[in-house]
Amino acid sequence: MNPEIRIRGYHTDMYQHVNNARYLEFLEEGRWQLLEDHMNLEEMMNNNFLFFVVNINISFKSPAKANDIIIVKSGLGKIGNTSVVFKQKIINKQTGAVYIESDCTFVIADGDGNPRKLEGELKENFLNIPALEK
Amino acid sequence: MNPEIRIRGYHTDMYQHVNNARYLEFLEEGRWQLLEDHMNLEEMMNNNFLFFVVNINISFKSPAKANDIIIVKSGLGKIGNTSVVFKQKIINKQTGAVYIESDCTFVIADGDGNPRKLEGELKENFLNIPALEK
Amino acid sequence: MNPEIRIRGYHTDMYQHVNNARYLEFLEEGRWQLLEDHMNLEEMMNNNFLFFVVNINISFKSPAKANDIIIVKSGLGKIGNTSVVFKQKIINKQTGAVYIESDCTFVIADGDGNPRKLEGELKENFLNIPALEK
Amino acid sequence: MNPEIRIRGYHTDMYQHVNNARYLEFLEEGRWQLLEDHMNLEEMMNNNFLFFVVNINISFKSPAKANDIIIVKSGLGKIGNTSVVFKQKIINKQTGAVYIESDCTFVIADGDGNPRKLEGELKENFLNIPALEK
Repeated sequence: MNPEIRIRGYHTDMYQHVNNARYLEFLEEGRWQLLEDHMNLEEMMNNNFLFFVVNINISFKSPAKANDIIIVKSGLGKIGNTSVVFKQKIINKQTGAVYIESDCTFVIADGDGNPRKLEGELKENFLNIPALEK
Repeated sequence: MNPEIRIRGYHTDMYQHVNNARYLEFLEEGRWQLLEDHMNLEEMMNNNFLFFVVNINISFKSPAKANDIIIVKSGLGKIGNTSVVFKQKIINKQTGAVYIESDCTFVIADGDGNPRKLEGELKENFLNIPALEK
Repeated sequence: MNPEIRIRGYHTDMYQHVNNARYLEFLEEGRWQLLEDHMNLEEMMNNNFLFFVVNINISFKSPAKANDIIIVKSGLGKIGNTSVVFKQKIINKQTGAVYIESDCTFVIADGDGNPRKLEGELKENFLNIPALEK
Repeated sequence: MNPEIRIRGYHTDMYQHVNNARYLEFLEEGRWQLLEDHMNLEEMMNNNFLFFVVNINISFKSPAKANDIIIVKSGLGKIGNTSVVFKQKIINKQTGAVYIESDCTFVIADGDGNPRKLEGELKENFLNIPALEK
């Protein structure tokens, strides 16, 4: 389920726009939700599968303001040997206007912080995740 | 040493004032600094002395804004059997105007989360901390 | 409607507990929701009725952790000549365990930052707000 | 001057690492400092020159932890017709280990939010900013 968030005064900054750093929390919320909807997150955590973000490329298309209701959409981008890309978008619920487009690349590390190879069941799990809806 | 912080746009909210939640981070910064200046924090952490805040009573006297330089002042309030109160103040560096007055009550817990009695060396450590300067 | 929030990793700190400052955001969310449910907030903002928090007294009863689902409950405390107290509680949705109890005192200021007297229609609006449910 | 920040518990998350969103605040701090060191920021703000970030590309090289002292380094990347890129790096003060590498692209907008052409004095101002030190 895509998170819906009503923008409040405390999300915004001097310019009355949602602050850059805050969007990263909204995007993180979207990724947890996506993982939760398509994986057994608790089992993964118990098995010491850690998610380490290695890159975020985020474009700020237009500024969200107090009282806007936003939707965070997330979907699978591509899967490499050790890394996964999630594609994300934050839009206005009423108008569909795009606030944010973002690619987040992460690896699955073991307890020692070493990236695991994405193969077998682990890879299958990710392949179950749908692409970002248009 | 009292933390000095220059207020930036990302600290402020819709009203162009520093947001309430942010002040709690500034106050936490002041407390770490105070502890660091008067205790061997690393040794305490290694010995599983955990600081758990149980109450914060914070008064917002006037709003800090972008470009203000603030100083966070902290000092010992009173020491009970298991709890300590730190008194804190956030002021404008140039004018001395008061933004925040706050009391923070915390306990020292062991690894299981149980409060330790404040006696002996542990109590002495806290008694070394000076009161909040006027 | 009482906000429900699922605690995520980014809400928590070194101790794996929700950080103190974050609770203030959760409480602010609860207050906006309460006001929205019982007042015409947009009209108030258009009329330059500003909400200025003057004191928060927050007790940390037990620590919320990742994956907990919390509920923020808010209700009317007392109304003075120029100030209003909201009583708030954050509990675990499943178990009812109490994480936070908090009193928030605020004033309604005009565009110049001067507190308005709470009388007439303005006072009636606040008297419509129910007390914190037990 | 490059900002120096001591990492505290409240900067870190469940994994005991500085949280992704927090790094964006550190980088914003670095950019303000860079601008302040090389421009008359107050004059620019009075003249309605607004800084709008349009893209951040941030790579997380290794995780900063509590008690680390970090330095945020920032420098001029390239200047386009309407956009400027700042290159930034966050390193460990003692060891020089790299935590973050980031490119931030922004435009200068007028009061209506339209990008200004970077030419004349405005462009000169940016050309005075040194490149990111190696």
